[in-house]
Amino acid sequence: MTLKEQLQHKIDNKTKPLGSLGYLEKIALQIGLIQNTLTPQIENPYMLVFAGDHGLADEGVSPFPKAVTAQMVPNFLNGGAAINVFCRQNGIKLKVVDAGVDYTFPSHDMLIAAKVKNGTNNILHGPAMTAEECITAISKGKEIIEKIHSEGSNVVGFGEMGIGNTSSASLIMSKICKITIEECVGRGTGHNDLGLERKIEILRLASIKHKKVNGPLNILATLGGLEIAMITGAMLRASELGMVLLIDGFIITSALLVAHQMNNEILQNCIFCHQSGEQGHKLMMEYFGAKPILNLEMRLGEGTGAAVALPLIRSSVNFLNEMASFGEAGVSTRE
Amino acid sequence: MTLKEQLQHKIDNKTKPLGSLGYLEKIALQIGLIQNTLTPQIENPYMLVFAGDHGLADEGVSPFPKAVTAQMVPNFLNGGAAINVFCRQNGIKLKVVDAGVDYTFPSHDMLIAAKVKNGTNNILHGPAMTAEECITAISKGKEIIEKIHSEGSNVVGFGEMGIGNTSSASLIMSKICKITIEECVGRGTGHNDLGLERKIEILRLASIKHKKVNGPLNILATLGGLEIAMITGAMLRASELGMVLLIDGFIITSALLVAHQMNNEILQNCIFCHQSGEQGHKLMMEYFGAKPILNLEMRLGEGTGAAVALPLIRSSVNFLNEMASFGEAGVSTRE
Repeated sequence: MTLKEQLQHKIDNKTKPLGSLGYLEKIALQIGLIQNTLTPQIENPYMLVFAGDHGLADEGVSPFPKAVTAQMVPNFLNGGAAINVFCRQNGIKLKVVDAGVDYTFPSHDMLIAAKVKNGTNNILHGPAMTAEECITAISKGKEIIEKIHSEGSNVVGFGEMGIGNTSSASLIMSKICKITIEECVGRGTGHNDLGLERKIEILRLASIKHKKVNGPLNILATLGGLEIAMITGAMLRASELGMVLLIDGFIITSALLVAHQMNNEILQNCIFCHQSGEQGHKLMMEYFGAKPILNLEMRLGEGTGAAVALPLIRSSVNFLNEMASFGEAGVSTRE
Repeated sequence: MTLKEQLQHKIDNKTKPLGSLGYLEKIALQIGLIQNTLTPQIENPYMLVFAGDHGLADEGVSPFPKAVTAQMVPNFLNGGAAINVFCRQNGIKLKVVDAGVDYTFPSHDMLIAAKVKNGTNNILHGPAMTAEECITAISKGKEIIEKIHSEGSNVVGFGEMGIGNTSSASLIMSKICKITIEECVGRGTGHNDLGLERKIEILRLASIKHKKVNGPLNILATLGGLEIAMITGAMLRASELGMVLLIDGFIITSALLVAHQMNNEILQNCIFCHQSGEQGHKLMMEYFGAKPILNLEMRLGEGTGAAVALPLIRSSVNFLNEMASFGEAGVSTRE
């Protein structure tokens, strides 16, 4: 029997009707295959929240001022953000990565200083970053993963913070999925109708300006963010190392779009955790043929959808390892 | 401000975009209202799995033999069932209630002996139980809740085990929701087409035999199960005591249909945890206007959907209690 068949046989012989744990069975099978074992484990899970500023924020694409990116970092470090609460609850180690915030932070245990530069350029006027800066961001993302992997982590979730980054994500998505800007753009952190119209208008201009950009690296450098580029690198390395990748949120999934262009085997390692309330995210899930575990109408970012989904992923692994089989329990099977 | 307004104000001032925690915000509000406080807590959560046998199982309404009800009880007591795994993982105390299994169990720490009789009568020939037996089952359910409430529990989930009990649930649902048997009946623990046809045929006969039955108590006594009656009593008392009720699964929800007929305020205390894969459950959710937290295509029973949902309910309470407000964190609000 192949490992896949052995895993399915183990799942089917637990004391429950066939298939009756639904998604949890699919996740158990997937993690077994990722870890190449009949007894998969969730070990030392990490959440990495990558923060970066966006030059385009100056154009009013977000209802929040750009300064909020830098202001939220101390909120993370002080434990007061949503992602802190959910990581504490679910035994996830949280690190905040300064990928390119327009502010100089004092050092802190929870902060990984990986700044490439103080925010991207305004993409209405030119590319967000140079190819070299983009490659640097990708490399730093890979190094961060190597560090946590060497500490025994085999599961990593990704979060982000960056005022204006839903704009970058929308542009990347439009380019890679070949979907119009209008369909990709959502209300982000909470636009009203007028704000949304303005955001679409600006993104249309940016899209026209960069319409000839092609290939994942150029798309990422031109339209992306420093945090998005670093996440892309982190995802690529995490999947190479056989880790489980927790995918959640519109911006994170835009990084996955790029990473997937670079290595399409990455999807085998991805667990889609939450269907975002952001409209474009639904189209991204269709693009990947993915059906996320949760649909709680969350649209906060920070990796919160992944952090609250982890207990369900643990449940998948736990039933596979801990439930009795019909034979062990002396329970009759179907007649 | 009313408590509801105060809770909403507290939720809206957390460092996140307005409404961006979706369902978690609704659940936080609901639990705050149930517990009449701005700082709700999940304390000493319990899962009660009620087991009972069904005379109708002799007619082949389940693909599993009737003996499985009694065989699964030791599996629960030995910790090998799905519900054990999920309760252990999520810090939920599990008790198995013998409401009416056709077997005499030795005493066990985890087992609550509350047997009314050794299974219901075959409802093709007469009522499942007498009105007196039904009232006894309801009372015992209330007593069990009083006991766990006195131990400081303020959250209770309900599970069940009983070969044939999806048939009882379908009949109760058909009667209370005024929906045809065909729409209420599903594959239960895993019928094939032929088995499903036979099940529908038998339930049609039972439905015709008892077509004049009316009123929640009579419906429960005539068509229900001992475990369903005991759950009904437990739900009624738990809501009177201001506990949070975790609702999950087709059979548990059939008990709620009856309890709701007896006291329609009960819904205020109910959190719908999982949309079952069982087709009738969707119609039940429509009847209550409920949208469950999870939709994982599970259809195992035992309260497993509630047990795996508890971490998300904890997340709701935790964000309300632990997240910083914009003011506390010094983060700018929308422009």
